Amino acid sequence: MLATLFVLLHAHVCLALSMSQQPPRIDSTERVASTKWLALDTYSWTDQDGVARKWDVATRTTTNESGVDAVVIIPILKSEYSLDTLLVEQYRPPVRQATLEFPAGLIDKGETAVQAALRELKEETGYVGQVSGTESRPVCMTPGLATEQVQIVTVHVDLTLPENQNPQAELDDGEHCVVHRVSLKDGLKKVLDNPSKAMPIMGLYLFSIGLDMGLSMSS
Amino acid sequence: MLATLFVLLHAHVCLALSMSQQPPRIDSTERVASTKWLALDTYSWTDQDGVARKWDVATRTTTNESGVDAVVIIPILKSEYSLDTLLVEQYRPPVRQATLEFPAGLIDKGETAVQAALRELKEETGYVGQVSGTESRPVCMTPGLATEQVQIVTVHVDLTLPENQNPQAELDDGEHCVVHRVSLKDGLKKVLDNPSKAMPIMGLYLFSIGLDMGLSMSS
Repeated sequence: MLATLFVLLHAHVCLALSMSQQPPRIDSTERVASTKWLALDTYSWTDQDGVARKWDVATRTTTNESGVDAVVIIPILKSEYSLDTLLVEQYRPPVRQATLEFPAGLIDKGETAVQAALRELKEETGYVGQVSGTESRPVCMTPGLATEQVQIVTVHVDLTLPENQNPQAELDDGEHCVVHRVSLKDGLKKVLDNPSKAMPIMGLYLFSIGLDMGLSMSS
Repeated sequence: MLATLFVLLHAHVCLALSMSQQPPRIDSTERVASTKWLALDTYSWTDQDGVARKWDVATRTTTNESGVDAVVIIPILKSEYSLDTLLVEQYRPPVRQATLEFPAGLIDKGETAVQAALRELKEETGYVGQVSGTESRPVCMTPGLATEQVQIVTVHVDLTLPENQNPQAELDDGEHCVVHRVSLKDGLKKVLDNPSKAMPIMGLYLFSIGLDMGLSMSS
């Protein structure tokens, strides 16, 4: 009898708990300040328990309706003798130093992610590429801090093409990129771990850990 | 004679160009606005060509002197039959939806990255882990937008330990995490590509692409 009562009570409590849970929602947003490129907002939101909360958020002023700001490119340069990728080294004022990143850039108005990827790869590295798959679904960069979303595109560079024999970057005014061609199997992790080299971006660093893990898992 | 003159002139122009290049530098920073957790700054900086420029920057108000804000954990759960990792699903107001991320969290004052990794893994997932290597060098999250830096720590979870038989998360007030245990070889990319699942963070998505690439390169 007591056991039955306990089970019923327990079930009731669990049911009540699960019924009180609700999808979290944004109730309103307040623009605290805005500059040319960035805005600082405070969101008022209601969490799963119905509790009213605040969250401070950074937003690019350039973000379009899709919510996707930029494209990140994984360049694959395959030949009979090598399997390489391309990294871009550039000075980034927010971290006050040069960084190592995959080629990337904002998506222009009216462009698809794939079109932006091929354009940015040509501009930043000089290489002409081809996309065999599709872009990734939108992914977030730092979702505890910013609205920023990107799509990832893997681009294959045919090294036998005449236009890829002497690639020349076409940088915008004020852009200063150094392009590094790095072996995926043997060079990437070493470059990223070298403290005398520029600071890697997290996504690139995690890519290299995943790559090494994949290589070691099947060997 | 003409050829010699051309070579001399060309060498001179190149020398002049390389001499005019200088390390970029931050000249001053202006605080535009600040909330409890985030600040919006505009940096005045001088680029490699000596041109004065502006850059808008988001900064966590919690960042300590080291500049490293947080730790990202790669959990490795290995048994005789499986090789899994742990993903955390949680609602993130800045992107107005739930995300899939590796366990992560801010580093407390006086904590090392490794200490923070073991503490956060226990809090967010309930698992007790061990670190065999060291933390990564600091890496940046989105260096075109924010100062934010993190360190990455790979944590091994011994599934035979009594404390890992029935792991229970120890969430702070207001934290609502769902933990997913996912096969590294067979499940990770599928989960991240499934549009009905939460939005992945870029670093995790690139990790899974690297992992698949490593697996296919050695098979």
